[in-house]
Amino acid sequence: MKIDLNADLGEGFGPWTMGDDDALLQLVSSANIACGFHAGDPLIMKRTVLRAKELGVDVGAHVGFPDRQGFGRRPMQIPVEELAAIVTYQLGALDGIARSIGARVKHMSFHGALGNMAASDAALAQPLVEAVAAFDPRLLIVSSTSAAIEGAARTCGVRVAITFLADRAYDDDGLLVPRGRPGAVIHDQQVVLERVRRLLREGRVVTASGGSLAMPAQSILLHGDNAEAVSFARTVRGAIEEAGGAIVPVSQIPGGFDARPS
Amino acid sequence: MKIDLNADLGEGFGPWTMGDDDALLQLVSSANIACGFHAGDPLIMKRTVLRAKELGVDVGAHVGFPDRQGFGRRPMQIPVEELAAIVTYQLGALDGIARSIGARVKHMSFHGALGNMAASDAALAQPLVEAVAAFDPRLLIVSSTSAAIEGAARTCGVRVAITFLADRAYDDDGLLVPRGRPGAVIHDQQVVLERVRRLLREGRVVTASGGSLAMPAQSILLHGDNAEAVSFARTVRGAIEEAGGAIVPVSQIPGGFDARPS
Amino acid sequence: MKIDLNADLGEGFGPWTMGDDDALLQLVSSANIACGFHAGDPLIMKRTVLRAKELGVDVGAHVGFPDRQGFGRRPMQIPVEELAAIVTYQLGALDGIARSIGARVKHMSFHGALGNMAASDAALAQPLVEAVAAFDPRLLIVSSTSAAIEGAARTCGVRVAITFLADRAYDDDGLLVPRGRPGAVIHDQQVVLERVRRLLREGRVVTASGGSLAMPAQSILLHGDNAEAVSFARTVRGAIEEAGGAIVPVSQIPGGFDARPS
Amino acid sequence: MKIDLNADLGEGFGPWTMGDDDALLQLVSSANIACGFHAGDPLIMKRTVLRAKELGVDVGAHVGFPDRQGFGRRPMQIPVEELAAIVTYQLGALDGIARSIGARVKHMSFHGALGNMAASDAALAQPLVEAVAAFDPRLLIVSSTSAAIEGAARTCGVRVAITFLADRAYDDDGLLVPRGRPGAVIHDQQVVLERVRRLLREGRVVTASGGSLAMPAQSILLHGDNAEAVSFARTVRGAIEEAGGAIVPVSQIPGGFDARPS
Repeated sequence: MKIDLNADLGEGFGPWTMGDDDALLQLVSSANIACGFHAGDPLIMKRTVLRAKELGVDVGAHVGFPDRQGFGRRPMQIPVEELAAIVTYQLGALDGIARSIGARVKHMSFHGALGNMAASDAALAQPLVEAVAAFDPRLLIVSSTSAAIEGAARTCGVRVAITFLADRAYDDDGLLVPRGRPGAVIHDQQVVLERVRRLLREGRVVTASGGSLAMPAQSILLHGDNAEAVSFARTVRGAIEEAGGAIVPVSQIPGGFDARPS
Repeated sequence: MKIDLNADLGEGFGPWTMGDDDALLQLVSSANIACGFHAGDPLIMKRTVLRAKELGVDVGAHVGFPDRQGFGRRPMQIPVEELAAIVTYQLGALDGIARSIGARVKHMSFHGALGNMAASDAALAQPLVEAVAAFDPRLLIVSSTSAAIEGAARTCGVRVAITFLADRAYDDDGLLVPRGRPGAVIHDQQVVLERVRRLLREGRVVTASGGSLAMPAQSILLHGDNAEAVSFARTVRGAIEEAGGAIVPVSQIPGGFDARPS
Repeated sequence: MKIDLNADLGEGFGPWTMGDDDALLQLVSSANIACGFHAGDPLIMKRTVLRAKELGVDVGAHVGFPDRQGFGRRPMQIPVEELAAIVTYQLGALDGIARSIGARVKHMSFHGALGNMAASDAALAQPLVEAVAAFDPRLLIVSSTSAAIEGAARTCGVRVAITFLADRAYDDDGLLVPRGRPGAVIHDQQVVLERVRRLLREGRVVTASGGSLAMPAQSILLHGDNAEAVSFARTVRGAIEEAGGAIVPVSQIPGGFDARPS
Repeated sequence: MKIDLNADLGEGFGPWTMGDDDALLQLVSSANIACGFHAGDPLIMKRTVLRAKELGVDVGAHVGFPDRQGFGRRPMQIPVEELAAIVTYQLGALDGIARSIGARVKHMSFHGALGNMAASDAALAQPLVEAVAAFDPRLLIVSSTSAAIEGAARTCGVRVAITFLADRAYDDDGLLVPRGRPGAVIHDQQVVLERVRRLLREGRVVTASGGSLAMPAQSILLHGDNAEAVSFARTVRGAIEEAGGAIVPVSQIPGGFDARPS
């Protein structure tokens, strides 16, 4: 069994840091790199891509709302034509930085409130996925389970890989319970670890309402906000290896939803 | 004789506009499009590239300091490693937007204070030109006359085309007299027009000190800040056509400094 | 009859201008000055306050979302504790600039999406009006008709004056029809002028559904986006004077909702 | 002997933190609070002022360049009229937040590159100190030793208190050696502690060239970037108490340069 470990990286800004990127980069197979809108700046992006390249970690664009102060977590109502251009801009910026140092952007994902809104609203998912496809139809979209994203991918001829957020509650449609709602974030590491093990064993997750949901993930998202988080990420990696899993970049794992012409 | 007419375009931001882009796009052969740092935003960039493509106008990246409030005209001391990443980010962002709509970025230029500083400081020009070459060695750098830029281009294997700023005073080294100094900007349109005519006739310009300087330009920069400026741009275009000149994108005109491997 | 004419001013940013502030300042009795979040910057604020002071125009703070690119017109979901601090910050900034040149901020209003959201949501209006009262309980809140704002003012002991937006459609609760909805903005100047005249004559407005609504306004909002708008503002001013009205700053007109201790 | 301990606080932004503000607030007598331009945001400012008030720590405005990404450490050339308005804006913003919660801003200081430039350039110090005096002539300016700041204070009728940066090298004019120059920042804590002790004992500092300079400081600046820095700040506090010094807010200590009318 092959599975990808990915993490949101390069989330500092100017003098400010967030999380222990270097520790996480040694644990993951794919990096979602902030593109300067909700977090990140050109120099941080460059250094993060360089370090990922050195460590053989795949590079992806983590695209968010233009709201640094709110870290892209505050819902904003932006006309879709403008939002699509905002997505393209960020994809291009990271791509330019990656190409300049001989790396390649292989996947992308939507961050925070933009991700939640796109995952639950087909009318928003469609123009955003179109923007990704127009930029580069080979770019893999990494997303939590979402009928809206998969539906848009179908019409655009792109591939979606599913990532599992082990410490986030899911509703019965497979959508993440929004941050801020009670129980949205699971803090008990034993519970989180058990969710990872169930995913590996059964390919299923227990939802917020207690139901059992198929979770056809090719990838697991790790966090690295503090020393404890990094140590837990190491535990998750250990659990995968113990279960005989191979940790491989998501771009190299078949599955998910693939609408690319064969 | 072939000559390029170019203008700085897409210099609005959000709800704010600057200049009459549509009128200018019908006069120029190349557009220098702001990339969201000193001016411009993703939607303005997209619309400007779309319109340029419709009109057959070449698209270039106009790269500036991260200083929207100062319009990139205030000198900033930023470490060169960071400044190089800032340049790459902007090139990538416009390139992503252009590729998404089937257009191509063919040239780039440095805006405002960044342009003045790079043109007069070889230690700054070198890493910035390296950043351009690392991004895409076929990208043409459009610059006012500058030994620093040409020297850096020589070591990087890229091409520099010279643009003539008809309404700006030059010193005897061919550098622009910085904005803010007396006489830096020439407001008398008759004088400006005479400078254009002399360029076309003799390939020379009269400097601020009264000397005569060779000005081997392939391009002339137009402004379009107001209705009068647009009407004057039309006059310049007329003068060129009267002199038998053909107005052609700078990327199609040989000359300037070319260090690309042949 | 006394009535205030007010306008949103100082809405430029850095090199960009918006509207003809100088022309409008000669027509209005009160100025709503952008505080650097949705528009405006320190220098523009200072110059606008200086010019208002010279002309005897009252100065007010026009407080908006932290979203310059969207001009504060895009709804954002920001936790109320943070939003209250954002309001206080802007009030303080303009107050500091006004005090430094011997002027005084006498009123405030909420701009754009923030204004619409506060006017229609008591849970949002309450902490925002509390922030105004904590900053300065003598500050007059100028608002379009809103039960939410008046309810909050009642508990906070501040005064609300009503401003009439002659070119905007109202629903039957007295709330503005949001921009973007069909018919939200009335473009026919004869219709707008007739609405002003009806207000002066009857104190009523015809709503979007065709009903007649009491509009107990002490103030009328003018726009000055372009030459035509300024000329129309002049017409409105003329209509008031013709009807025997005196144009006086809103802070000097009793009425509206006053919960200040007497 | 009375001496003030102060520290730069509230230097986070949005989701990002910097330093251990809570630990430092328990050690200092005065807090220099970032005002949202080089660091800080409205909510962080409010929380920092609230906590300072609870702990009886004096509140001051730490005013910087409009350059968050560069943390206000990159020199920028901004016309002085605009820079003065930028200073006033920040003073007003913090003042508004402080007044709203019943606190008072008692002092101010210039941060980073702005501080260095003002301290060494009388033509810049003059309009900036005038801006402070126009805002509130009772506001105490806390500065490292600077003839330029003191000269401006003389003409403006304000008071300057001197703060000693124990871990920064001084030149023979009493100006800080700019960050980035070799030896500008002293990392050896034993050396720093010895400099504090010499200040307390002799009122002098050894300059970068080895000379001995009078350092008539009423205040010592502490840092709190990391756990080690906080522990060192505690050591400095202990050294002062050991030497029989009383730690008191700088606004309560006479001395420095006082040009206020008596």
